[in-house]
Amino acid sequence: MSAYRMISIPDAQDIVLTHTQPLGTVTVGLSGALGRVLADDVGAPDSLPPFPASIKDGYAVIAADGAGEYPVIGESRAGQLDDVPVRPGTVAYITTGAPVPEGADAVVQVEDTERLPPGPDGERRVRINKAAKSGQDIRPVGSDIAEGDIVLKAGELVGVAEIGILATVGAVHLKVHSTPKVGVLSTGDEVVDPSTRPLGPGQIRDANRAMLLAAAARAGAEVADLGVARDTEGHLEGCLAAAIERGLDVLVTSGGVSMGDRDLIKPLLERQGTIHFGRVRMKPGKPLTFATLALQEQGGRQMLIFGLPGNPVSSFVCFNLVVLPALRKMAGWARPELRRVAARLTSDLKLDPERPEYHRATLQWSIVPPGTCAAATAANAASLDDSASPSAPQPQPQPQPLGACELWAISTGNQISSRLLSARSANALLEIPSASGILPAGSLVSALLIDDLGCMPVPPGGVATTPGF
Amino acid sequence: MSAYRMISIPDAQDIVLTHTQPLGTVTVGLSGALGRVLADDVGAPDSLPPFPASIKDGYAVIAADGAGEYPVIGESRAGQLDDVPVRPGTVAYITTGAPVPEGADAVVQVEDTERLPPGPDGERRVRINKAAKSGQDIRPVGSDIAEGDIVLKAGELVGVAEIGILATVGAVHLKVHSTPKVGVLSTGDEVVDPSTRPLGPGQIRDANRAMLLAAAARAGAEVADLGVARDTEGHLEGCLAAAIERGLDVLVTSGGVSMGDRDLIKPLLERQGTIHFGRVRMKPGKPLTFATLALQEQGGRQMLIFGLPGNPVSSFVCFNLVVLPALRKMAGWARPELRRVAARLTSDLKLDPERPEYHRATLQWSIVPPGTCAAATAANAASLDDSASPSAPQPQPQPQPLGACELWAISTGNQISSRLLSARSANALLEIPSASGILPAGSLVSALLIDDLGCMPVPPGGVATTPGF
Repeated sequence: MSAYRMISIPDAQDIVLTHTQPLGTVTVGLSGALGRVLADDVGAPDSLPPFPASIKDGYAVIAADGAGEYPVIGESRAGQLDDVPVRPGTVAYITTGAPVPEGADAVVQVEDTERLPPGPDGERRVRINKAAKSGQDIRPVGSDIAEGDIVLKAGELVGVAEIGILATVGAVHLKVHSTPKVGVLSTGDEVVDPSTRPLGPGQIRDANRAMLLAAAARAGAEVADLGVARDTEGHLEGCLAAAIERGLDVLVTSGGVSMGDRDLIKPLLERQGTIHFGRVRMKPGKPLTFATLALQEQGGRQMLIFGLPGNPVSSFVCFNLVVLPALRKMAGWARPELRRVAARLTSDLKLDPERPEYHRATLQWSIVPPGTCAAATAANAASLDDSASPSAPQPQPQPQPLGACELWAISTGNQISSRLLSARSANALLEIPSASGILPAGSLVSALLIDDLGCMPVPPGGVATTPGF
Repeated sequence: MSAYRMISIPDAQDIVLTHTQPLGTVTVGLSGALGRVLADDVGAPDSLPPFPASIKDGYAVIAADGAGEYPVIGESRAGQLDDVPVRPGTVAYITTGAPVPEGADAVVQVEDTERLPPGPDGERRVRINKAAKSGQDIRPVGSDIAEGDIVLKAGELVGVAEIGILATVGAVHLKVHSTPKVGVLSTGDEVVDPSTRPLGPGQIRDANRAMLLAAAARAGAEVADLGVARDTEGHLEGCLAAAIERGLDVLVTSGGVSMGDRDLIKPLLERQGTIHFGRVRMKPGKPLTFATLALQEQGGRQMLIFGLPGNPVSSFVCFNLVVLPALRKMAGWARPELRRVAARLTSDLKLDPERPEYHRATLQWSIVPPGTCAAATAANAASLDDSASPSAPQPQPQPQPLGACELWAISTGNQISSRLLSARSANALLEIPSASGILPAGSLVSALLIDDLGCMPVPPGGVATTPGF
C-alpha cells in the first residue's frame, strides 16, 4: 500500500497554488514585455492627442463660414506646421493626424472639396462643397487618453495591443513579474535520448523531456534541460543538487513515482524537503507528487518540485493541470487556472469506475440553427468525427444562417496513458466522472482548455457571419 | 477621389492569400519544431512498446497458475533485465514499463500481492492474492504505435504533445516550412520614438512599430525593425531598398496611405511593383493597401507589402485580418484564416451606415441554464459588463449545474480608430454590418478570434463541472 493518502485533483491544485507565490519583479524594455504581467499600473504622462488633431485629409475651416470658395492660407501637415492662424474667410490645408491650426474649428475632408485655379496673386484656392459642423473631424486634446489616466493596470497580461498602448504613452521601461526558471529531468535506466536508433533491448526513447521543456517554454518559462537521471539514489541526488545549484524556481521530473522498488523520487524528496501529496485520484496521473524544498543555503528560498508519472500522457495531463497554473501564478497571473468550458460529446465514452478521467479531445464549434435549442443528434455527431484530425480534408465552407455556436468535443481515441497519440491535436481535457457504464454521445461535459482555439479545426460548413455583414 | 476601387474585406483577403505561397522548407531539431508546420509525414521506425511491457509494478506470472504462493525467480526492471524465463509455478518481479519476461502472460499489480519470508534456500517468495487473466496489465508490442505508422502528417502544426510524439519515434531532424521574415516600417515626420518625453509640437509617439513587431513575432515570424521613414520620396525609397536588401518576405508599413499629398506609399509601390488593392470597405482601415514586388535581382522572388493605415487601431485590425493569415499561409498552415465564432452582444451597438465595422470586444463564456434555450436578458448583459477588464475584481466561482456555454461579446468601448485602448484585452473582432440604427444587446454576431481564449476573463460564477465529476 502506498503511504500517501489519495486526494482529489481540485485539492491537489489548491495545495499547489497555496504553496506558489508570484515571483519578484524585473524591469524590461518594450519588446521584452510581450506575454509578461505588469507589476505596476502604467499612467499616461501626457494627453493623446496632445493637440486638437484632424481625423481626415482636407481643409481646416471655420464652420460658421459654410460652403463656398476660399483662399488656402497655410498648411498643417503631421510633423510640419505653418503656424498661420485661420481667420474668417480663409482655410488651411491639413493632413490626417496633424494639429488643427488656431482659429479653425472643423475639418472638411478632401473628398468634399475641389481645388480651384490659383487666385490673382497666385494664392491657392479651394471650393468647400459641404458646410461643416463645429468640431467636425477633429479629435480634441486628450480624447483618446487624458494626461494622468491609468492605461494599463498592475496584473494585466501584455499582449500585442498592450505593447502599442505602452509605446503610445512612452512606457519603455516596464516593471513586470519575473518568469519562472524551470528545469526538466527525466528518470529511468530504460530511458534513452530521442536520437537513439535502433533501440537496445528494453530501451525506450525519452518523450517527456522534450515535451515538458516545450510546455514550459510555451508557458513563458526560462527552461533548463537537466537530462536523464539513472535509477540509483546517488545519481538522482546529484541531479537534484545540480538543479538546486542552477537557481531554479521549479523542478519537473518524470518517472520514478510509482510503487516499484526503484521509484526513488518520493524517498529522495522526503529526505530533502516536504511532500505535500503523493497520490491523486485521477486518470491518468495517479502517482503525481508535489513537494517543496526550503533552500537554507540560498536565503531560505523555495523550490517547487513536481514529480510527474513516467507515462507520457500522464506527464502531459499533470503538467497542464498542476504545473501550468503554478507557472502562471509565479509569472503574476491573477487567474492562473485553466479556463473551463462546456462541450458536447460526439461519441459515447466508456466510464472508469475507479477514477475520474481527463479525456483528451479536440474541441470544434458546431452550429445551433437559429431559433432552435442546442440538440445533440447522432447525425451531427457523426458528421464531425471525420474532421478530428486537422490534416483531414475539410469541406468547403457553405454559407449558413447565423446560429449560436456550441462546442463539440471529439475524443482523440484510445486513452491508455502510454499512448501519446491521444494528445495529438488535443485542445481540451474533458472532465469525465468516475462511474460505471457509458456516457452517451450528446452529453454535455466540462472541458479545460489546453491549447489556443484560434487554430482549432474549422467546422464543416464554417460559421456564418452576422446577417447583413 | 481615390484612384483605387473600394473592395470588400473578403475580396481583399482572397487577393492576399492568392498572392501568398507557402515558403520553402528547412530542417530543424526537435526543440526548434515547436509552433512550426511539418512539411513531411513522420513515420515510426519501430514499434511502441518495442517489447511486451508491464503496465504496473508487480509480478509477471503465468495466468493459468492462479492465486497462491510462488518463488520469485528473477526481476525485470525498466532498463535492466535478468533474462530468466518464467516457468509454470514461478513468477518474476517486474516494474512499470519493463519487458514481460519470456513465458509470462500476465502481470499482477503489487497491491494484489504480499511479500513472504524467504524460502529454505533463501529464495524470494510472494503470495499472489488475485488470479490474473491472460494479457492482464501487459501492453502488447506496437499497441501504442506500430512500426511504419504515420504518427504526424505533413501540414500538421507542432504543439507540445506533438513534440513528445516526435521524440517517441526518434524524429529529431524535421522538415518544416520556413518562417516568414517580416520587416516593420513606420512612416511620418510627426512620428517619434516611444521613449520621447516630452513630446515636441505636433509630435506623437510611434505605437505601431512596436505593436506590429510584437504581432509578427507572436505569429512566429522572424522580425526586423526598419525604423521610421520620413515624409520624402527619397527617404521612403531608401527604406524600401533597405527592406529588399535584407531579404524580407514581407514588408509591413503603417501610415502614408490616406489621401494627403504626402501620402507617398501608394505612388512608390505603383512605381516599383503592383498594387492589388488600395481601398477596402471596412471600419477601421479603409486605406489598407496591398502590393507585390517581383525582385528581379533576387531571382525573381516576390516580396509582399502591406500598407497599413497610420491610426494604431486600423493597423492592429488590418494586421489581424490580412497580414496574419498571409503569415500563417507562408508558414504552411492549411487553414490560415482567423477562426469565426458566434457571440451575443452584452450592450447595444450603434451601427455605421457607410462601412461594416470590426468592433473590438472581449469574449467571455456565459452559462445557458440546463434545459433552457440561450436567451439574452438585460440582467445577464449587465452582470457581465463589470468584468470587461481582466483586472477587475472577480466574484468567487459559485457551483452551478452544468449548462451549455455561449459566448458573450463585451465591447471595449469607444471605437474611434485613434483610440488604441479599444484593443486592450480584446480577443475578438465582431463583424458588425453596415446599416443605420442600433444593433440591440442580445443580438447574435459573428466574431473572429484574435487572441487565445485560454486567458480570457472567467465568467461570474464560473463554469460548472460535468455532473458527478
